[in-house]
Amino acid sequence: VGLEGVAIRGGFWGERLAVNAATSIPQGWERLHAAGNVANLEAAARGEGETRGEIFADSDVYKWLEAAAWEIARTGDEVLLRQQRELTAKVAAAQEEDGYLHTIVRLRGMPRYTELGWTHEHYCAGHLIQAAVAQRRGTGDTGLLDVAVRLADHLVRTFGPRASHALDGHPVIETALVELFRETGTAAYLDLAAWFVDARGRSTIGDHARDANYFSDRVPVRETTTPEGHAVRAVYLAEGAADVAVERGDADLLAALERQFAAMAATKQYLTGGLGSRWEGEAFGDPYELPSDRAYAESCAAIGGVQWAQRMLLATGDESYADQVERMLLNGVLPGVSLAGGEYFYVNALQVRGDAVPDDDRNPVNGRLGWFQTACCPPNIMRTLSSLGAYVATTASVDDVPALQLQQYVHGSVAAAGFALDVETDHPRDGRVLVRVREAPEGEAELGLRVPAWAVGATLDGEPVEAGLARIRRTWAPGDEVELVLPFAPRVVHPNDRIDALRGSVAIEAGPLVYAVEQVDLGDGAPVDDLRIDLDEPLLVGESDARLGVPTLLASGRIHRHGPDPYPGAVDAVAAGPVAIRAVPYFAWANRSVGAMRVWIPTD
Amino acid sequence: VGLEGVAIRGGFWGERLAVNAATSIPQGWERLHAAGNVANLEAAARGEGETRGEIFADSDVYKWLEAAAWEIARTGDEVLLRQQRELTAKVAAAQEEDGYLHTIVRLRGMPRYTELGWTHEHYCAGHLIQAAVAQRRGTGDTGLLDVAVRLADHLVRTFGPRASHALDGHPVIETALVELFRETGTAAYLDLAAWFVDARGRSTIGDHARDANYFSDRVPVRETTTPEGHAVRAVYLAEGAADVAVERGDADLLAALERQFAAMAATKQYLTGGLGSRWEGEAFGDPYELPSDRAYAESCAAIGGVQWAQRMLLATGDESYADQVERMLLNGVLPGVSLAGGEYFYVNALQVRGDAVPDDDRNPVNGRLGWFQTACCPPNIMRTLSSLGAYVATTASVDDVPALQLQQYVHGSVAAAGFALDVETDHPRDGRVLVRVREAPEGEAELGLRVPAWAVGATLDGEPVEAGLARIRRTWAPGDEVELVLPFAPRVVHPNDRIDALRGSVAIEAGPLVYAVEQVDLGDGAPVDDLRIDLDEPLLVGESDARLGVPTLLASGRIHRHGPDPYPGAVDAVAAGPVAIRAVPYFAWANRSVGAMRVWIPTD
Repeated sequence: VGLEGVAIRGGFWGERLAVNAATSIPQGWERLHAAGNVANLEAAARGEGETRGEIFADSDVYKWLEAAAWEIARTGDEVLLRQQRELTAKVAAAQEEDGYLHTIVRLRGMPRYTELGWTHEHYCAGHLIQAAVAQRRGTGDTGLLDVAVRLADHLVRTFGPRASHALDGHPVIETALVELFRETGTAAYLDLAAWFVDARGRSTIGDHARDANYFSDRVPVRETTTPEGHAVRAVYLAEGAADVAVERGDADLLAALERQFAAMAATKQYLTGGLGSRWEGEAFGDPYELPSDRAYAESCAAIGGVQWAQRMLLATGDESYADQVERMLLNGVLPGVSLAGGEYFYVNALQVRGDAVPDDDRNPVNGRLGWFQTACCPPNIMRTLSSLGAYVATTASVDDVPALQLQQYVHGSVAAAGFALDVETDHPRDGRVLVRVREAPEGEAELGLRVPAWAVGATLDGEPVEAGLARIRRTWAPGDEVELVLPFAPRVVHPNDRIDALRGSVAIEAGPLVYAVEQVDLGDGAPVDDLRIDLDEPLLVGESDARLGVPTLLASGRIHRHGPDPYPGAVDAVAAGPVAIRAVPYFAWANRSVGAMRVWIPTD
Repeated sequence: VGLEGVAIRGGFWGERLAVNAATSIPQGWERLHAAGNVANLEAAARGEGETRGEIFADSDVYKWLEAAAWEIARTGDEVLLRQQRELTAKVAAAQEEDGYLHTIVRLRGMPRYTELGWTHEHYCAGHLIQAAVAQRRGTGDTGLLDVAVRLADHLVRTFGPRASHALDGHPVIETALVELFRETGTAAYLDLAAWFVDARGRSTIGDHARDANYFSDRVPVRETTTPEGHAVRAVYLAEGAADVAVERGDADLLAALERQFAAMAATKQYLTGGLGSRWEGEAFGDPYELPSDRAYAESCAAIGGVQWAQRMLLATGDESYADQVERMLLNGVLPGVSLAGGEYFYVNALQVRGDAVPDDDRNPVNGRLGWFQTACCPPNIMRTLSSLGAYVATTASVDDVPALQLQQYVHGSVAAAGFALDVETDHPRDGRVLVRVREAPEGEAELGLRVPAWAVGATLDGEPVEAGLARIRRTWAPGDEVELVLPFAPRVVHPNDRIDALRGSVAIEAGPLVYAVEQVDLGDGAPVDDLRIDLDEPLLVGESDARLGVPTLLASGRIHRHGPDPYPGAVDAVAAGPVAIRAVPYFAWANRSVGAMRVWIPTD
C-alpha cells in the first residue's frame, strides 16, 4: 500500500513524524545550504567554482528532496513545496547537455566515470532518481523526473554489457533504476539495473585502499551466502537485487537473497537490528562478531535493512521480514535522530563506557550532532520517516479475495483493497491495536494483522493468535471492529552461544523495543560499567518517563567492584549492595544526558 | 648492559636469532630492493625519478640498516658488512646539501615540512639516527653517523622554540635524538628532543581525517593519564619522553610516564602484551576495550612497548617493567615472525573464527605474509631480535657495590660490572637457569636474578624466592654457580570483570608464555569456535611439538552446539562429548596451517 493509502495521524509515530516535519526537514534545508551542497549545484550550473564537502555531497540534497516530496504529500506544506521547486530548478541547471550530472566531478574537471570506485557518480544518480520518483508521486511535479530521465538515458547509453562495464563503488542505482522503470515503463532502466546487479562480485572495482569485499564485489550476488564488507553498500545492493528479482520473476536471484538475509539475521545483526560490526571499513564483521562497544550500526545501514526487508516481505509474503522492519525501524533507525529532531547519531553503539574518549565526530560518546562532514544519515532518516506510511500495509490477495494486511501498527487510517480502516494505537508504547472499519469491500474479504514473533500470548478479539499473520476472512461492514492485543510484558533475551562479545550477559525487551540502561538513571555511585542484573528478581514495567515520553522497565542488580589486575589468577570482583535498574527504550537514550550506557548487562 | 657485554649462543633465543640472521635479514635486503625503497634513495641522489611505496618508505631501509649493524656486531658477517656500506653510501648520496633527507618529499617536489602530520619526515630521520648510532656502536663505521649528524643539525636549525613549532605526526625522533646526544654529547639534540616531547599534546598537528588523539596530540605528555590513539605513535612518544626524563633528571615527567604505563598495563594491554584494540586508527581503545577477534596488537606496537618498558626499568629499577619486556617480547613481538623467519604478522589477533573472511592483507586470517605495502613490522622485528642482547642485563649498583642484574634469561654469556657469567637455559621452554661465574669482581659484589611475578614457587639454589629481584651479595670466585628454578606449571588466567569481550572465558599460560588453541590440533569435527574448557579437569604439560619445537599444554573441554536463534529467550546450547585440548604457545600459532584459533576459551 503506497503512501496515498496511509495516513499517520497521532500516537507514537504521529509525534515522530511531526518532529520530522517541524524540525528535522526545515533544519536540513538550512544545513545543506550552510554545508555547501547547494552551492556546489549553483557552481556546476555556472560551470565553475570551488567544491565543498565530500564527493557524494549531491546525494544529500537528493535525499532531502525525497523527504520533502513525501512530506508535501503528507501535509501539503507550502513552504516546502516552494523550496522543492527552487532546489529542483538548481539541480536541473546543474545537469549537463547529455544528461550527465555530478557537481564535484564536473567542477574538479575530473574525467567522468574513470574513478567510479569512489566518485559515487551512480550513487548520486540513484538518489536523484529516487527523489524524482518521490516528487512525481508525492507532489505531481515532474521537474526532477525530467532530470532523472535524461540522466538515466545517459546511463543507459554509457553502461551495460555492450558499453562500459564500470561499476560504482556504492550501490543504490540498482533499486533506483527499477523504481524509475516502474514509474516510466522504460524497460532499458530495468535491464541496466539487472546488469549492474549481475556484473558485480567479480572484483572489478578498483580503489586505492579497499579490497573487493568492501564494495560487495568479491562474490557475485547470486553466489553470496552472507553479506560482507561495507554494510550500507551491501544492503543497498541487496535491495536493488530484490527489485530486479521481482520485476524479472527471477526465482534464483530471490532465493539467493533469502539465504543472504537469513544468514545476516542469524549471525550479523545486532539485537537492535543494527548492521555493521566494524568501524574499519564500516563493515559487517565475521559471523557472530557483534561487539556492543564498537558496534558501527550506522543509521543508514538500518535504513537499507528496512528497505531490503520490506522488499523481501513483498516478494515472499514471509511475515518475519515485517518483524525485521519493525525491529530495525524502532531500534536501528529511530535512535539515529534525537527526540527533538535536530541531532543525529551516525553510529549506534550498544555500549558506551564511562571513561570513553570521543575520538571521532561519529563516536556516540559525543552524543548526537547536528550534521556531519559525511552527512548521509540525517537526510536519510528524514526521508525514511516521511515515507513511513509505505511500510504500514500490504495487499497480497489470496484466492482472488480482496485482502489487506496490516504490517506495522500506526495510529491513523489505511485505505486499500476496498477497505478504509481507522487504526487506534499507541504502539510501540502500548500493545493494544483497535481497527475500525469505515468502508469495506463487497462480499468476502480478508483482513490480516501481523502478530510479531515476540508477541507470545497475543490475542485477536480475545482469542489467542500465533506469530505470523492473523487472518480474518468474512464479509465486512462499516463499524466492524477488530482488537489485537500484543503482550508488552518485559522479557529477558540471551545471546547466542557463539557471540563472544555478549557472553554472560542478557538484554531486556518489551514489545518490539530493546531497552538500555543509562548512567543518568543509575546515579554516580553506581557505574553502568560495573552493573550486573539479578535475574532472580522480577522485571517490572515502570512509569512512563515524563521527559522522554517513553515507557520504562525496572529490574534489580548489583554493582561489582573489579580488582586492579587485568588478568588475575582467579575471579576477582566483589558484589556490592543491590541497586535498582531503570531502563529506557534504546532509541531514546542520550536524550537527557550523554554518558555510559549499555544494552547487554552481565548477569549477577 | 650493552650488546658488547652479552652473547646469545644457543637455546631458544639462539635459535630465533640464527633464523633472523640466516633468513629474515637477507630476505629483507631483497624485499627492500624489490619494493622500491632502495630505488627511491637512488632517485633522490639523482634528484629526480618516480617514487615507490608509502611516504615513510625510507624508514624501512633504516630499520634494516639498524638490524644489519647489530647483526654484524654479533657475528661479523662479511656479506652484511658489504651490504651495509653499499646502502649507507646510497643514503649519503640521497642527502641534500643542508642535511635534509627524505626521498619521497624531495622527489615529489613537495615543500619540506608543510604536511608534517603525515609526511613522516622526522619519523624517517629518527630511524636514520637510530641506525647510525647502531652502525657506529656495532660496527665502528661512521658513514651513517655523518649523515645523521648533518640531518640532526639541520633539524636543530629548523625546529624548536625559536624556530618552526611543527611536529611530526609519528614520533620516534625524540628517542633517536636522545640516543644521538648520548653518542655525540651534543646537547642541542637533547634539547630538541625535550622540545618535541613538551610541545606535543596541544592539538597542533593538522591532518585530513584524524583527530588529535590519533597523534598523541590531544593531551600534553605530562598530563596524559593513559596512552590513547595510534598505539605505535603513543608508545614511541612515551619511550622518547622517558629518555628525556632520564637525561634531564626530570622526575615530574618520569612520574607521568609511570602513571601512563600503569594505566596501560591495567586497562589497555592484551594478555599477550599486545597494544592497540582497534583497527580503526590502529588505536588503543577505551579502558577495558580488549576484544580478541579485532585485536590490532600491531607487531610494531609491542616493539615500542618493549622499548618503553626497558627504559622505565632502567629509570626506576622496578622489576615489573622487566616482566613486561619478557611478556611483550615472547607473546607480542615474536608471533610477528614465522618460525622459519620469512613471513610476518602485522596484526596479532587473539582469536580467529573458522569462517573469517580475509578482507585486508593485514588480517591474520591470511596467515603471515612476506611483506606489506606498509612494511614497518618486518624490519622492526629484525632490528629487535638482532639487538635482543640489550634487554638481558642491567648494572644498577647498590651502595657502590658492583652489581649485575640478569633481567631476561638467554643461553650465552654476560660480562659487566666485573662479572663474566655463562648462562645455561632453554628459557622460555624450560624454567631452569644455571649461572656460572667465569670472572668475578674483587671483593663483595651483587648478582641479581629477576623472579617474574608469574613464577610463584621459584627457588634460588633451592631456597624459595619472591617475585622481584633475588639478590645475592657476597664475594664471588670463578666456578661459582647459582641455579634459579622458575616453575612452569600450567595455570589458568581469568579476565578482569570489566573486560566485556572476555567474560566467561579463561586463558592458559605456563611460565612466561600465553597459549592458544588452533583448529589443526582439535580436528574438523570440533570447531574451535564452539570449544569450552572444563576447569574441573587438570591442565597438563604435553610433549614438545616436534614440528614447532615448542612445549604444549593439554586440557579437557567440550564442544557446545549453539542454536540457530541469535537472541533466544533462554540459554540455547547443548554440550556434546568431551574433547581433548592441545594448546601451543601463542607465538607459534599459524606455523603449521592457518585456521581458527583462540587464546581465551569459554568455560564449560
